[in-house]
Amino acid sequence: MPLGAMQHWPLRVTSLIDHAEREHGGREIVSAWADGSVSRTDWRGVAHDARRMAQALEAAGVAKGDRVATLAMNHARHLTAWYGACGMGGVLHTINPRLFPDQLAYIVGHAEDRVLLYDALFAPLVERMKPHWPTIETYVCFDLPEGWSGDVGFAEWIAAHDGDYVWAQGDERDPCGLCYTSGTTGNPKGVLYEHRSTLLHAMAEISPDVMGLSARAVALPIVPMFHANAWGLPWAAPIAGCKLVLSADYRPERMCNLFRDEGVTHSAGVPTVWIEMIAYIERTGADLGPLKNVIIGGSAAPRAMIEWLRSRGIEVGHAWGMTETSPIGTVGAPPADWDGKSEGERVDYVSRQGRVPFGVELRIVDDEGLELPRDGKASGRLQIRGPWVVQRYFKAEEDAVDADGWFDTGDVAALHPDGTMQITDRSKDVIKSGGEWISSIELENAALGFDGVLEAAAIGIAHPKWDERPLLCVVRKPGAEVCPRGLREHLAGQVAKWWLPDAIEFVDELPHTATGKISKRTLRERYADYRFADAEAMVGRD
Amino acid sequence: MPLGAMQHWPLRVTSLIDHAEREHGGREIVSAWADGSVSRTDWRGVAHDARRMAQALEAAGVAKGDRVATLAMNHARHLTAWYGACGMGGVLHTINPRLFPDQLAYIVGHAEDRVLLYDALFAPLVERMKPHWPTIETYVCFDLPEGWSGDVGFAEWIAAHDGDYVWAQGDERDPCGLCYTSGTTGNPKGVLYEHRSTLLHAMAEISPDVMGLSARAVALPIVPMFHANAWGLPWAAPIAGCKLVLSADYRPERMCNLFRDEGVTHSAGVPTVWIEMIAYIERTGADLGPLKNVIIGGSAAPRAMIEWLRSRGIEVGHAWGMTETSPIGTVGAPPADWDGKSEGERVDYVSRQGRVPFGVELRIVDDEGLELPRDGKASGRLQIRGPWVVQRYFKAEEDAVDADGWFDTGDVAALHPDGTMQITDRSKDVIKSGGEWISSIELENAALGFDGVLEAAAIGIAHPKWDERPLLCVVRKPGAEVCPRGLREHLAGQVAKWWLPDAIEFVDELPHTATGKISKRTLRERYADYRFADAEAMVGRD
Repeated sequence: MPLGAMQHWPLRVTSLIDHAEREHGGREIVSAWADGSVSRTDWRGVAHDARRMAQALEAAGVAKGDRVATLAMNHARHLTAWYGACGMGGVLHTINPRLFPDQLAYIVGHAEDRVLLYDALFAPLVERMKPHWPTIETYVCFDLPEGWSGDVGFAEWIAAHDGDYVWAQGDERDPCGLCYTSGTTGNPKGVLYEHRSTLLHAMAEISPDVMGLSARAVALPIVPMFHANAWGLPWAAPIAGCKLVLSADYRPERMCNLFRDEGVTHSAGVPTVWIEMIAYIERTGADLGPLKNVIIGGSAAPRAMIEWLRSRGIEVGHAWGMTETSPIGTVGAPPADWDGKSEGERVDYVSRQGRVPFGVELRIVDDEGLELPRDGKASGRLQIRGPWVVQRYFKAEEDAVDADGWFDTGDVAALHPDGTMQITDRSKDVIKSGGEWISSIELENAALGFDGVLEAAAIGIAHPKWDERPLLCVVRKPGAEVCPRGLREHLAGQVAKWWLPDAIEFVDELPHTATGKISKRTLRERYADYRFADAEAMVGRD
Repeated sequence: MPLGAMQHWPLRVTSLIDHAEREHGGREIVSAWADGSVSRTDWRGVAHDARRMAQALEAAGVAKGDRVATLAMNHARHLTAWYGACGMGGVLHTINPRLFPDQLAYIVGHAEDRVLLYDALFAPLVERMKPHWPTIETYVCFDLPEGWSGDVGFAEWIAAHDGDYVWAQGDERDPCGLCYTSGTTGNPKGVLYEHRSTLLHAMAEISPDVMGLSARAVALPIVPMFHANAWGLPWAAPIAGCKLVLSADYRPERMCNLFRDEGVTHSAGVPTVWIEMIAYIERTGADLGPLKNVIIGGSAAPRAMIEWLRSRGIEVGHAWGMTETSPIGTVGAPPADWDGKSEGERVDYVSRQGRVPFGVELRIVDDEGLELPRDGKASGRLQIRGPWVVQRYFKAEEDAVDADGWFDTGDVAALHPDGTMQITDRSKDVIKSGGEWISSIELENAALGFDGVLEAAAIGIAHPKWDERPLLCVVRKPGAEVCPRGLREHLAGQVAKWWLPDAIEFVDELPHTATGKISKRTLRERYADYRFADAEAMVGRD
């Protein structure tokens, strides 16, 4: 054995761009720039320029396995750089420009990046950081401004090369990408994606119950390419041969114009993006064009958002994942009994975080690591395993998973009998009161459903009797008034009585992380010495 | 390198059934039996019984890599046997019961099958063949009739086992399936599918531009599980977690009842199946229920069939493939510019054989092996390569592909600039006249468009001046008259003048192969001594 065989065909990401070039070569890749202009290329153009860039990297002395970094928003040249870097056997490191300078210095040094391709927008940051980035030998600016005497421009850099290049061969488990998580404790950790893991993730992503991408689709990710690979869309799109619209500008007006002008059918973004979009549309009467499928992830989508989008004929999928999971862990595609569900039941379903695509597997465990039932009631630490889940962080000494391959996500969730997963909290954010868990997320969601509430964050405050008790911090919508007593009564109708916050603080703004999420860590630091009596008096004053 | 890693997750077909059991356990698997009855199980039931069968195989002394054969129509027990055989590390060999006895003796001996699971329907055949099948030690009847004292029944065979079984582990390139092609020359050749090739094929198959299977889909393959794996559906369905309807009876009335009663949304079959279905519906006023997607393959679908189905709101995909390609090579999913096409242009598009999914690659070459342009005009030998294409036949001494991995399909085709492929002939059926090629298929399709023509076959007859000239053999529809002169005039409006057949012969029936295709080889033998003068006189008589 074997006495016969099927063909050897390594799972390399270069086959993605080869397929798109050969079978969907004329399908457009649109770049919408921050200055309002739009430029166009197609899969053939991206593939050709990626080969030229691979030649430029080799000419610059970059070797197989070397890290090539990007510091850029979404556009076709950034996409080209992905395939160019991986195509010559390099490892693409997408840097989040919102990281703090010390994090930026750390990750570039840790990654040992040899090349950085960046947007002119980030030139001041790059200039500031250069002294702290000793490993970088070559700086290339994607959109070098006229007359700028800094680094070489991308077009000029690849101009000397003809694209007559054969992609680097290699093992399918060779690394092709590197992305650092902006962890809330310790230094950022790098997830080293492999050709194989990336390809399998992309194949799963286009399937009907994940993104459902066909050749007719027009996809506009409203999530940066440096944020968990823009949820994998730049790798998945060439499989379908769909049109890709990449924008450096996420403002609602620009988005709506692109939806209409480019015929966008599929989009994906965090709740904040959709909050702004909905507000803009409500205000201006703009529309969403032919948009039909929206994936919302990053954090929980409020129920009202799901209802609003569905009322416009848009199928909404709630997704969950993380940098460590490439990122797709779950997506809320319609289940088998969808047609028999009422609209309310459908919204209930979509409000959960969805179900796993083929490949990944979930379980929940208690604090002792014992598996909990998938009954929709038990809530425990969420663990995941599968072909596109991290095994070991970059340069780590130890695996990030247990002996059975389970990666602990840091989320707390329930698994329902219908296969859907429901995040109830981050394990570090859960509020432990009297030996039971209070979900900070459910408290926040309940608060968000009250008129005038823009943002809400619940944290645990040390309490002599109960260990911890919840404090709710609320940001009001501009110009809105929020009655504390009314909010309290509203909450009382939504959560168990013992979950009700001991205090509500109205604040002007909440601290956010580099990826735009509320920083509970900063909030906890801010309220480290908080005592409940103060606020209760405040609430009582109403 | 590597200094980090994603998880090791071998591509084994057992992960398919594990996923379906865990995430879609309650989704139904319906068996429609030849006696008109229907029985039901679900993915959980199939998975459980497959584990019990794996235990039964081990108890019978079957070892990893051994071949386990089936001789059965489509039903849930057959499906169970697929996963049971592969699950214990065995190789599933699906035997086509329509093969001739000497072929049946040859392939079982060549495969060294150790176990045969069969339908009671084939018991007489099995009894006749037993003396010629010395390698088979264990016979199991899927549906043992009451009081029958022959071999053990499937239910009884697995009854002693509890399903507490862990699937065999192994390399992802281990074989999991074996299917013999009923070649027209020489002995049948075995294609040895691997876990990996089968899994990648299944992942591609559910994608929107192939079968488009979601959890909401209800799929009814009208193609036997012994015929190119029922086009891969039993492997693909568990990824989506869709409902599967398996029928041992393909009669139109039964099909229409199942479409309606089971809510079938996706189906697939050869043109003959749809010819009968359409005739039945036209006659009785039956309908197709909620059917929305139909894949037609095996041979070319007449244009009128595509138009009829489309007029009922059904999306039709023309597919092409072969046992050697797992089988999907191409599927005619809507292209990017679909919305802008007229209905006529859409039917034109669907009439071609479709385009490749991500993974496989096509090219056409001339008789010297030089690649021909993808211009929609050049026609040449069709070659294919990719992860689910054969490399080497079972027990063969040499590869079935050239040095670059190209497998010659034996088809003659054109590749269009839009990526679609159009079969123009089988390379051995093409009629070579005066140094040029005449497509026998195009002649036949033109003839099928004439009123009263049921079947048509064009073959080349030796000719002293032109090397070969076409003879067209025609079977009339029951009770229909076909005017030879009218048919000739009809053809003259459809094909080049020099393509027109030198003679038309009306026959009562045409010879068919074991897989239901017209046997051109038999036809050529029948007309080996044919001279044109005879027939021309006949045509002239009209």
